[in-house]
Amino acid sequence: MSMASEMLELASQARVASRVIATLSSGVKNELLLKMASRLEASASVLQQANALDLQAARDKGMAVAMLDRLELSDKVIASMAGGLREVAALPDPVGEVTGMWVRPNGIRVGRQRIPLGVIGIIYESRPNVTADAAGLCLKSGNAVILRGGSEAIHSNRAIGEVLQKALAEIGLPAEALQVVTTSDRSAVTELLKLEEHIDLIIPRGGEGLIRFVSEHSRIPVIKHYKGVCHTYVDADADFDMAEKICLNEKVQRPGVCNALETLLVHRDAAPVFLPQIAAAMIRAGVELRGCEASRNLVPEMNVATEEDWSAEYLDLILAVKVVDGFDEARDHINRYCSLHTETIITRDYAMSQRFLREINSSVVMVNASSRFSDGGQLGLGAEIGISTSKLHSFGPMGLEDLTTRKFIVLGDGQVRE
Amino acid sequence: MSMASEMLELASQARVASRVIATLSSGVKNELLLKMASRLEASASVLQQANALDLQAARDKGMAVAMLDRLELSDKVIASMAGGLREVAALPDPVGEVTGMWVRPNGIRVGRQRIPLGVIGIIYESRPNVTADAAGLCLKSGNAVILRGGSEAIHSNRAIGEVLQKALAEIGLPAEALQVVTTSDRSAVTELLKLEEHIDLIIPRGGEGLIRFVSEHSRIPVIKHYKGVCHTYVDADADFDMAEKICLNEKVQRPGVCNALETLLVHRDAAPVFLPQIAAAMIRAGVELRGCEASRNLVPEMNVATEEDWSAEYLDLILAVKVVDGFDEARDHINRYCSLHTETIITRDYAMSQRFLREINSSVVMVNASSRFSDGGQLGLGAEIGISTSKLHSFGPMGLEDLTTRKFIVLGDGQVRE
Repeated sequence: MSMASEMLELASQARVASRVIATLSSGVKNELLLKMASRLEASASVLQQANALDLQAARDKGMAVAMLDRLELSDKVIASMAGGLREVAALPDPVGEVTGMWVRPNGIRVGRQRIPLGVIGIIYESRPNVTADAAGLCLKSGNAVILRGGSEAIHSNRAIGEVLQKALAEIGLPAEALQVVTTSDRSAVTELLKLEEHIDLIIPRGGEGLIRFVSEHSRIPVIKHYKGVCHTYVDADADFDMAEKICLNEKVQRPGVCNALETLLVHRDAAPVFLPQIAAAMIRAGVELRGCEASRNLVPEMNVATEEDWSAEYLDLILAVKVVDGFDEARDHINRYCSLHTETIITRDYAMSQRFLREINSSVVMVNASSRFSDGGQLGLGAEIGISTSKLHSFGPMGLEDLTTRKFIVLGDGQVRE
Repeated sequence: MSMASEMLELASQARVASRVIATLSSGVKNELLLKMASRLEASASVLQQANALDLQAARDKGMAVAMLDRLELSDKVIASMAGGLREVAALPDPVGEVTGMWVRPNGIRVGRQRIPLGVIGIIYESRPNVTADAAGLCLKSGNAVILRGGSEAIHSNRAIGEVLQKALAEIGLPAEALQVVTTSDRSAVTELLKLEEHIDLIIPRGGEGLIRFVSEHSRIPVIKHYKGVCHTYVDADADFDMAEKICLNEKVQRPGVCNALETLLVHRDAAPVFLPQIAAAMIRAGVELRGCEASRNLVPEMNVATEEDWSAEYLDLILAVKVVDGFDEARDHINRYCSLHTETIITRDYAMSQRFLREINSSVVMVNASSRFSDGGQLGLGAEIGISTSKLHSFGPMGLEDLTTRKFIVLGDGQVRE
């Protein structure tokens, strides 16, 4: 069978199965997720045997230790996959919710009701735990799911997929609702991305190369997130101790993630006091500072920031620093360089806080709180399927609700149009 | 200047202007729309001079009379464009609405607030009134707009665009917020569709060819609607007189539109009484019937329905008719052939109505009401920018709210992540 027809068959089976999953009660879906969790735990040795094949192949290729760690299905990783599924089971089910209902002058009642998207394709790299996490979120929101992980985790992903499919079968549900693509041939992805009749949404998770490849080749809508160049603006009227605490948390608590601080903007009137204070704290924490000329006049220890620094996502203990004349310059800088991820203002000035909330249109806009809260779990969405920095469908961290859409329901008693 | 750099310049200007439009108060936006309306009326003779050039060119090319009618900017069409803008001015402004706000255990308050999408591109055919209608909806929802109409209306569209830009300038707003592409070179469209950094959404309006061209070439998200193959299922327990009235309205009131009835499904137990009744009414109204074998046994006047009839969007006085064994067969038929537009059940049976609402996931699902209500205005959304039969972002008729997205806002008092 050609790759094209193989993917078409797999996706059409998922489409048929999706109709069954779409109408399940929350109770059945929760039962399924709990079964998936206990089957994963009970299958630890089978999963680890498959994982050993991937680990051996990776070692033979000379994969770096950090990457090998991400690939390993340790007992702890298996327990965390099971725990994740149980957490998703405990979340409220978005499907069926009526988000509004109104009556028209002719008496028809019109409402909008949440329904699953249908079939969701997840294209991801390396970490095999994504297989269980993404499957749980898609199934809980009433969708079928097609999973295509990285070729280096192929044996692990196949084994996880088989265990999860057994859980579906055990409670009488179609195993085709969860499909794992287990060929390492990249043309499988290209073929999947053409199947707009059978797949409703593609979510790529991984490096910028993967995401660009998927967006450029997909006829199916793609929700994506390239990078996080997060800004914090310390206003003239900020509480400097609060600002120090928040900026340090944003930069240092976990520098390698997309919601970490990358550029600090400081109001000209705050700079003489605040910049030496934050610079000392950052340097103590091992952060390299790269500043504009005005910053370096106040803190000579800073390196020179070049044009590239303003759009850099360091993912490391490096921070770009710029002094600005006020809100307008801060906003213009953010508009020019930000990635629409998360921007923060630190201020005690009510009017400034409101301008920032109104005029900055990134996916998450914060006042006096750490950008590290820009995450589905921290914001209260429950588990996160990804984060969108494009505005269509979802903007920002995405939870279960973002895997649904809304249909109109109309209740009449015989009305016709005049 | 090359087409690529011309479109890039136009789109970047729109992006810059969009930041101004995004933060306007509802009052200013309404003032703008009212100005646009009165300027259109005051410019009738200028518009009609430009329109005369398009009409002459169309006549020279031998364009059909019906198409010429659609192209003409009569006094009535101009009045209707102005009236449309005034109606949109009167609609509630979705921008700024906070759709929910909650408190996390650490005390941060998290909300979701509606913001404009940014820059919207509309690619459409023929009717020049779309230029004013689409501009009004995009600007009211805080977006900049790039309009690219059909080449046969190029002089009319340019003239309308100039009038509307003067209204923007008159109240001190950037005219670049409303861009009309006035070259007839199709490569302008191809270039626009590449500018994902500058345009947030593309809405194609026109025939299936245009829509397929746009979806296949766009790197920007596209909201689209190919066709409407609407089904009505008359249940065993339907009120047959109500069913007759509704089905007639759905098929006959305006057969050339996407929410007209195309396939009638009738429960086997209802068929012996209802089919002769509805067939007589349809035939009196000039409708050609094409039925399955069971239908033709009851109504010999019907022509034979072939496989093609089940997926046909006739847009004409033709109706496909099929007898089904019950809800399951009706649902399976709908799942196989529907275009996810609008499906209706006629029944007095509460349980059946609930199954239909739950198990049919088209964009509009109705009980005991005419499919002709499947329209933004009729459903109460105000004016309609289009209808989406793909599930991402919007599903079904789209109003002002569908031209917005939501950002997260976070209000803290110094919280950091542990």
